[in-house]
Amino acid sequence: MKKVGIIMGSDSDLPVIQKTIDVLKELEIPYEVHVYSAHRTPEEARNWSLMAREKGFGVIIAAAGMAAHLAGSIAANTTLPVIGIPCKGAVLDGMDALLSTVMMPSGIPVATVAIDGGKNAALLAAEILAVFDVDLAEKLNANRKAEAEAVLKKDASIMGRL
Amino acid sequence: MKKVGIIMGSDSDLPVIQKTIDVLKELEIPYEVHVYSAHRTPEEARNWSLMAREKGFGVIIAAAGMAAHLAGSIAANTTLPVIGIPCKGAVLDGMDALLSTVMMPSGIPVATVAIDGGKNAALLAAEILAVFDVDLAEKLNANRKAEAEAVLKKDASIMGRL
Amino acid sequence: MKKVGIIMGSDSDLPVIQKTIDVLKELEIPYEVHVYSAHRTPEEARNWSLMAREKGFGVIIAAAGMAAHLAGSIAANTTLPVIGIPCKGAVLDGMDALLSTVMMPSGIPVATVAIDGGKNAALLAAEILAVFDVDLAEKLNANRKAEAEAVLKKDASIMGRL
Amino acid sequence: MKKVGIIMGSDSDLPVIQKTIDVLKELEIPYEVHVYSAHRTPEEARNWSLMAREKGFGVIIAAAGMAAHLAGSIAANTTLPVIGIPCKGAVLDGMDALLSTVMMPSGIPVATVAIDGGKNAALLAAEILAVFDVDLAEKLNANRKAEAEAVLKKDASIMGRL
Amino acid sequence: MKKVGIIMGSDSDLPVIQKTIDVLKELEIPYEVHVYSAHRTPEEARNWSLMAREKGFGVIIAAAGMAAHLAGSIAANTTLPVIGIPCKGAVLDGMDALLSTVMMPSGIPVATVAIDGGKNAALLAAEILAVFDVDLAEKLNANRKAEAEAVLKKDASIMGRL
Amino acid sequence: MKKVGIIMGSDSDLPVIQKTIDVLKELEIPYEVHVYSAHRTPEEARNWSLMAREKGFGVIIAAAGMAAHLAGSIAANTTLPVIGIPCKGAVLDGMDALLSTVMMPSGIPVATVAIDGGKNAALLAAEILAVFDVDLAEKLNANRKAEAEAVLKKDASIMGRL
Amino acid sequence: MKKVGIIMGSDSDLPVIQKTIDVLKELEIPYEVHVYSAHRTPEEARNWSLMAREKGFGVIIAAAGMAAHLAGSIAANTTLPVIGIPCKGAVLDGMDALLSTVMMPSGIPVATVAIDGGKNAALLAAEILAVFDVDLAEKLNANRKAEAEAVLKKDASIMGRL
Amino acid sequence: MKKVGIIMGSDSDLPVIQKTIDVLKELEIPYEVHVYSAHRTPEEARNWSLMAREKGFGVIIAAAGMAAHLAGSIAANTTLPVIGIPCKGAVLDGMDALLSTVMMPSGIPVATVAIDGGKNAALLAAEILAVFDVDLAEKLNANRKAEAEAVLKKDASIMGRL
Repeated sequence: MKKVGIIMGSDSDLPVIQKTIDVLKELEIPYEVHVYSAHRTPEEARNWSLMAREKGFGVIIAAAGMAAHLAGSIAANTTLPVIGIPCKGAVLDGMDALLSTVMMPSGIPVATVAIDGGKNAALLAAEILAVFDVDLAEKLNANRKAEAEAVLKKDASIMGRL
Repeated sequence: MKKVGIIMGSDSDLPVIQKTIDVLKELEIPYEVHVYSAHRTPEEARNWSLMAREKGFGVIIAAAGMAAHLAGSIAANTTLPVIGIPCKGAVLDGMDALLSTVMMPSGIPVATVAIDGGKNAALLAAEILAVFDVDLAEKLNANRKAEAEAVLKKDASIMGRL
Repeated sequence: MKKVGIIMGSDSDLPVIQKTIDVLKELEIPYEVHVYSAHRTPEEARNWSLMAREKGFGVIIAAAGMAAHLAGSIAANTTLPVIGIPCKGAVLDGMDALLSTVMMPSGIPVATVAIDGGKNAALLAAEILAVFDVDLAEKLNANRKAEAEAVLKKDASIMGRL
Repeated sequence: MKKVGIIMGSDSDLPVIQKTIDVLKELEIPYEVHVYSAHRTPEEARNWSLMAREKGFGVIIAAAGMAAHLAGSIAANTTLPVIGIPCKGAVLDGMDALLSTVMMPSGIPVATVAIDGGKNAALLAAEILAVFDVDLAEKLNANRKAEAEAVLKKDASIMGRL
Repeated sequence: MKKVGIIMGSDSDLPVIQKTIDVLKELEIPYEVHVYSAHRTPEEARNWSLMAREKGFGVIIAAAGMAAHLAGSIAANTTLPVIGIPCKGAVLDGMDALLSTVMMPSGIPVATVAIDGGKNAALLAAEILAVFDVDLAEKLNANRKAEAEAVLKKDASIMGRL
Repeated sequence: MKKVGIIMGSDSDLPVIQKTIDVLKELEIPYEVHVYSAHRTPEEARNWSLMAREKGFGVIIAAAGMAAHLAGSIAANTTLPVIGIPCKGAVLDGMDALLSTVMMPSGIPVATVAIDGGKNAALLAAEILAVFDVDLAEKLNANRKAEAEAVLKKDASIMGRL
Repeated sequence: MKKVGIIMGSDSDLPVIQKTIDVLKELEIPYEVHVYSAHRTPEEARNWSLMAREKGFGVIIAAAGMAAHLAGSIAANTTLPVIGIPCKGAVLDGMDALLSTVMMPSGIPVATVAIDGGKNAALLAAEILAVFDVDLAEKLNANRKAEAEAVLKKDASIMGRL
Repeated sequence: MKKVGIIMGSDSDLPVIQKTIDVLKELEIPYEVHVYSAHRTPEEARNWSLMAREKGFGVIIAAAGMAAHLAGSIAANTTLPVIGIPCKGAVLDGMDALLSTVMMPSGIPVATVAIDGGKNAALLAAEILAVFDVDLAEKLNANRKAEAEAVLKKDASIMGRL
């Protein structure tokens, strides 16, 4: 199975990425995690992303805050799908990271999820891998059903909680 | 080859979607286009998305403006990857559509591209299909090289244009 | 008397909805509460809203955060008045939910109240039901007088508090 | 039948209100239009709204731009449902009017529609009047079907337009 | 001496207004404080502002949050200068109150100070009264000198604090 | 009578200031106009504002765009009331100028009007001068009545224009 | 003399860069212009910036729009001062480019100027080179005087233009 | 060696400036710190900046919050490069300070760093001084390598922390 590469710009983004990893583990999707900064370790980020397809990665997830260039700079070096997670920083509530991640110029797409959307990044990666993987698609469908049931369980008990 | 499903919330989004189609045509990726509104034709949008995987679609692209629910409501009905294009409306420069598309709650991801990012939506769809398609990946790599050369050609002539 | 249907996208919205319920109780307006997510339980949200008028509901209140599609997706399935409460999430202070709720395209209105405006949603629902209900209108007028008196009581004592 | 009162803060808001009137006419809902400014004619706005219920109005629609106080100041004088249309002004794309209209404090709700949402304001007014009016509800349902068909007609022809 | 009228929309604005009062006390400017809401007590707010000039007020300060209509609705009833203080609410950091206060339409000005700018509102009121009051102008000038000296004292000691 | 000093940061702000002057002329309030930039002519702006009270000015109006420091830097040099007009620039619709003008730190107030609010700046200046000038107050009251009548005239004819 | 390197992300940024070049020409500062995209030609942008100091550049100016990573990605490869010009794109008025350029994480600074601030980028580059160049500093001072005189000339004639 | 002048608008900005100083100390760059407010001590700020070049300063760093005029008003008095640090205040998360600092009109640049970007301001100052100082450039390069190594050390251990 293709692996998911996960890059975070700083280990302060770990709480967001932990949610990503939890989902991938649950879905038994192999992954590899790195701390590479687009700005402080541009060479390592570049070298890793130039080799990512060759090394068996199928999707890349990149999480960064502030002027979040990480996802975009990785996407510039590979035609693998790159998922960007804009992370909330000390100010501006992640709006800076959102715009820096999503407003990519024509030619180099980044699949952007919600601010701090670590869980959805993993699910999106899984959906991508599931396009050609019936078993994984089944797991995702089961996962959806479980989520729906959890909501409906809350619905069933809500009148008693008011 | 898996098809790309393209849904636009209104035919006023056609100029954005035209760029999507141009790229898919160029890459010889099969596609199907629909005008379905999450709000005005919720049944058709729902029925189409519930059947999308079964009908051979591999990726879905949804373009909508304002309170852009289209991508999210399609994503709620399928575990195929859904790419959302937030479209600029008469006011707010697409910020409403961007937040309505990207800020999805945990469980249901939407792969969001830039406001009016029709071309990148197509490229992202192609990248997703290319994860397991070496030929398509080659086309995308060639495409990148061509884009780079176009930039470098401009670079070569820029001093003369000043 | 027509009932008020209250749908929240997640039980994390309960503190906002509790204020809604408190007002409806005080005004003796019958209501029913559900936890239905536009994204995680689209079928239940759809089925409930398609039947709402028939089941004796007169107004629907929907509360959701982030890319808050709940009110809009319910409104797409009924011509009952739908009141949307945009809820503050972990980031962006509810601006995402506000724009996702209020910027509805032509054809499908959502009556939007303030971010986390649980109390006003109930009052608006009551005002709607009171259009043809003189007693309820009287209660609302009395309620307004009581609110005014509470302000004036504070006014009377303010100089002593400085 | 209860009438709809329409107040615009300035006759520069007429293009927005014209869409409101077109819908009300089509639905054969009686209406009355006024130009009253919350700031330049506070007395007339106040007197009119204090008497609105008594004069047979069932819903009020108020359209204003900039620091759009009109809907809120009318709502302060009546317990009829008040629908606010925030209008785009010369700057800020209507964000000022939106926040001034929707962020009402607890106690005095304003049912806010989209920026320049003249059509939806009328539809929301109709939905409110239709809570106790089966014929009007039928008209609204028919209207929805017609809108859906218009979308589907575009859907049917879209492939030919690409 | 003309009095300063201070109106707050809710007693939750008291911490902001306390700073206003502290400055006025220090400058020995007479003032009167009221809690009047533009929405919950529109009559009292109106009656007070219609009579303000006659009752010896020279300047009015109005503090309110959210869709902050208070300053504007008072300004609609008097040609006395009205100073608006936009107050931070539970969400949006006061941006809603700022736009609702400052973006007044032509004809009815509101002199807006910073979000939660209770102290500057008092100083502005004093500057207005000092236009024709040499003694008060002197006090304000002395106040400025004291403020400058306080800064310079900090400057003198800053190197030792590093 | 005290004069109104009008400073614009650039003669590109002239269309905004022209509205200011039109009102002052109509009210027969003496004024003096300067083009001084806080950044390009800091000395002249400083010298003028340091002498403004002495030279018979009662109020100062400052109009500037972008990082609009003009009003604040004048206010730093005088205890006369300073009215700031934030002007719309080539980008951001005047939000930059609004925040640069209104968010003054404690100690140095600027009475801020709406973006491009040239007319209201003049009316506010007149209201300030009218605190101790019964005749001017009368003119302002008459002006308000005329504005109200203009609105009501539009109200009288609006039904015919629909 | 050290050269100024000017990189634009796309030749659509040329109108902004033309202003930069005009100033550098006038100040007789040598420069070199390139069209390199951080995303479409990451290798060329990287190679150029890695060699910039060695090739005699003293300052780098980078102009880009949207998710404007250009300045940041160049800054990641050199310790020369990098000036970023955020360029206005088709939507959002350059706010995306501003945040993408200025909100750099600790360690890698970008000296950001105003949106579309091509002229100031050149002046800032000149100021940097003038720190150790008395003649250039003199030119800059003379330039300032000329700018001031131009303002004062407008000031002298403004009363006649009203 | 040229000194770095550091001005903060208020000693509440000290935590931000402390990071600036830490970097300068580490790089052995001489500096001088002042607390001068553009608004409360305009004369001292002016006098200091007019004399800055003459007194041996090579770069100026100015930190201020709210309507942050400090950097711009210093830049108006000198052709030394001025670095502006927008500081987060009690509301708006520093967006007011960012726009007040960065959106300078043509003619007077301010090199703006991120909100609360005290460390990057120091690094930028060092980069400016290093343009003509090979030793300092070497230190900066070494600093970058150390930062990269710190990231890579985290990378090496990240898998164990998950």
